Parts: sequence; structure tokens; C-alpha cells
Amino acid sequence: MSGFVSFVGSGPGDPELLTVKAVNRLKTAGVILFDDLSSGPILELANPAAELIAVGKRAGRPSPKQDHVSRLLVDYAQDNTKVVRLKSGDSGIFGRLEEEITALRAAGIGYEIVPGVTSASAAAAAAGIPLTRRLQARRVQFVTGHDVAGALPEGLNMLALADAQATTVVFMPKRTFALLAARLLEAGLPPETPALLAENVSHPDQKLTRASIGTLAETLAAADPRAAGIILYGPLAE
Amino acid sequence: MSGFVSFVGSGPGDPELLTVKAVNRLKTAGVILFDDLSSGPILELANPAAELIAVGKRAGRPSPKQDHVSRLLVDYAQDNTKVVRLKSGDSGIFGRLEEEITALRAAGIGYEIVPGVTSASAAAAAAGIPLTRRLQARRVQFVTGHDVAGALPEGLNMLALADAQATTVVFMPKRTFALLAARLLEAGLPPETPALLAENVSHPDQKLTRASIGTLAETLAAADPRAAGIILYGPLAE
Repeated sequence: MSGFVSFVGSGPGDPELLTVKAVNRLKTAGVILFDDLSSGPILELANPAAELIAVGKRAGRPSPKQDHVSRLLVDYAQDNTKVVRLKSGDSGIFGRLEEEITALRAAGIGYEIVPGVTSASAAAAAAGIPLTRRLQARRVQFVTGHDVAGALPEGLNMLALADAQATTVVFMPKRTFALLAARLLEAGLPPETPALLAENVSHPDQKLTRASIGTLAETLAAADPRAAGIILYGPLAE
Repeated sequence: MSGFVSFVGSGPGDPELLTVKAVNRLKTAGVILFDDLSSGPILELANPAAELIAVGKRAGRPSPKQDHVSRLLVDYAQDNTKVVRLKSGDSGIFGRLEEEITALRAAGIGYEIVPGVTSASAAAAAAGIPLTRRLQARRVQFVTGHDVAGALPEGLNMLALADAQATTVVFMPKRTFALLAARLLEAGLPPETPALLAENVSHPDQKLTRASIGTLAETLAAADPRAAGIILYGPLAE
């Protein structure tokens, strides 16, 4: 008899930003597979008898191969009734959830997705701003700053991303933002567009740096490359 | 001595999808101003001594004027130490947060934003799909289907919204989706693009309806206009 996998979004890092459902899943799990960004105090909420398996990736360190993570997940789910796959933020947003779901489906293993607070919402909240505003920022969009090889993804819709009437959130932006910013300026985004770098959002060492699209690349050169970061730009990012 | 306002995202409706922090704020609040969509079982978590004030808007019923809500919020915050302003989903996403923040700032009242699980994440989770996928849906974007007058907002970026390589989530879509769908097709989005209507997400009467951009307007004509709904479209919305 095979188990059941709960994909659980752990939110941005502060254990208080887990959902009640996420806490309940951690408390009843037999095995928890977690990323580096969803570790630390969050795991103190787990069932003390649960087996904790680190499968994390972290900026600046080589990632374990995704198919290795998927295989581990299937292996554990075949032996355990309750497996939690903990992913930072909301697991449906840049969490490579699809690949793990595909592996579970192929193995005939049931799953659920427990949505979490995305780091985009947490970063805006930390800055005291909304992500949308009537008339001024009617659209909010999220993109990732790096593909599996760590480069800026190809095929980005620059007309969408250079829209000065939207709020854009760039996940994992640090290594590629200088290139992205240059392309945004080329595509017509005004250099004075407000931009905000949020590092370690909701952690005790959270740091917010306000700049503009024209100046943020320089700011980033001075930032800690190891700290998890997210960039918001648009009219509200002041 | 004036109080302090916590803007609290209540998530999509299931009380288990509140964050631990949201529950803590509800338990210690003196006054809670809530929208219709964040009422019901969520309010059972509140401090029994808290004053509960409905300021809600709901699809199909006239909304209270936003400046009336802002004035109420300022009035209560001037008299109470701990005021919670509860908004469904994540309060920074189409929550008209800005207008209430502006009123608080003008009155010199402090505030915090407690981020919540957006209905977009909850709808995708309910459907068992992620919002992004490597190579196929590298961008996710949220728009609202109606402006303050209930019409489709003007100035939408149709090139961004008709992108078949993104996941798009339309909040409050019901009254205007037929018009939006026609404009998306005009802008080049293929009619067979998968589209998903999610109603009453995370509530006991949750309902998911799968269709395509070409057929969803017809599906909507048969849907309950009072049920809260959200539409996802793009390659992952199957």
C-alpha cells in the first residue's frame, strides 16, 4: 500500500507565515523532504518522529538533479503513508512542482497541494505596499531570473515585462538582474521606475533596499550573493 | 493614544488556509473589520470580545464606498489599540489596500501587512496544477476583471494577457469575461488555450469547471453569478 504526498508551501521563512494546514501536515508527517529555504525554525514544527530529508537547492551551490529529487519522493511515498514535500513560498510558483507531480502520477501515488504565502506577497507586505493599485498597477506578474543552468531564461516576453503600469516580481534575480535590467531599458521601461530588492524576507535579518531599474544592478553588486532575494519593480515599488 | 492596524489576508476561505500569524492577530484584536468573503468560519477564530464590523463588498451587490471604509477604519483605529482589517486572499492583490493605507498615513496611524494565501495559488492547488512550469509557462500574471464600476478595466495590456506561454489568473472575472475572451482571441490567443473556472475555492462547495478560452464564456453563462469565482488560463490550466 503506497502513501500520499502533500506538497506544502512553507511561505517565505517566518514560521508564523505557514498556514494552519501546513502546520497540521508537518505535525502528522512520517517523512518530510525539504529545500534549504524551507528549513530552520519551520522544521521545529514537525512531528518529532518524522524523518527529515534535505533535498534543497540554494543560490550559489550546485542543485541536486531534479530527477533525483523526484525519485527520492516516489521512493519515500511508496514506503510511507504520509509524506510532506516542503517547498518555500507557494509551491506552485517557480517550485518545479510539475516534474515531481509527473513522477508521482507515473507511479500511481496520490497527492495534494497545500498553497502557501508566496515570497512576492511577503516582500510587498514587508515594504508596506500592495502589489496592485487601481488605475496605476492593474496587473502583477512574476518571473524567474534564472533557468536550470542559472542563466536568464530565454523567450521572456519583454513587452509584458517592460510595462510601466504593472508590478513585476523577479524571483531568484541576483545573478541575472543586470542583464534583465539592460533589456528592460532597451524595451522602453523608464530607468527611473522604482525597484526594490528584498533579501531574507520575513527572516530576522530581512533587508529592504530601494533603488530604481536604472540603479539597482549597481546596488546588487554590493549585495550578499548568498542571501535569498527577490526584486519588485513598478510604480508601487517606492 | 491611537491604535495600530493589521491588514490581514485571510486566504481563500478555508480557515485552515489562514497563516498562524493571521490567527494570532484575530485572537488579540479589539476590532475586526471584514469583507463578506472573509467572514463565516474564519471569524469563529476571533477573540470573542472583539467587535466585528462588516464592511464587505460582494459580487452582484452594491459595494460600500471605499472612502467610507477608510473612514471607518481610521475612526476605529483612533479608539482601539488593536484593529484587524481582514481581506480575502492576500490583501496586497486587488484588495484596494492602497486607499486604506493612504487614509491611515494621513491620520498618523501605524499599520502592518500580514500577507496571505492568494486565491490564485489556492485555485491552482485545488486543480492539482502549478502556476508556472519550466519552458512552458515561465510567467504568471494576475489581473482583475472589473474596475470600480464593474466594467472591464481600461488600458489592459492585451499583448501581455494574450501570451500563450504564461499562466494568467483573472480575479472577479464573471461579469466581463465574455468581453475579455473576445479581446484575447482578437489579440491572437488561440481559442483552444485551456481555461479553468474555479468557484468558491477551498470552501465545502468548491467547484472547478474546465473549458477553453473559446468556450468558457458560454460555460460562465450557466454559472451561479453569486458564487465567488476566479479564472485561470494558459497551457497549465488543463
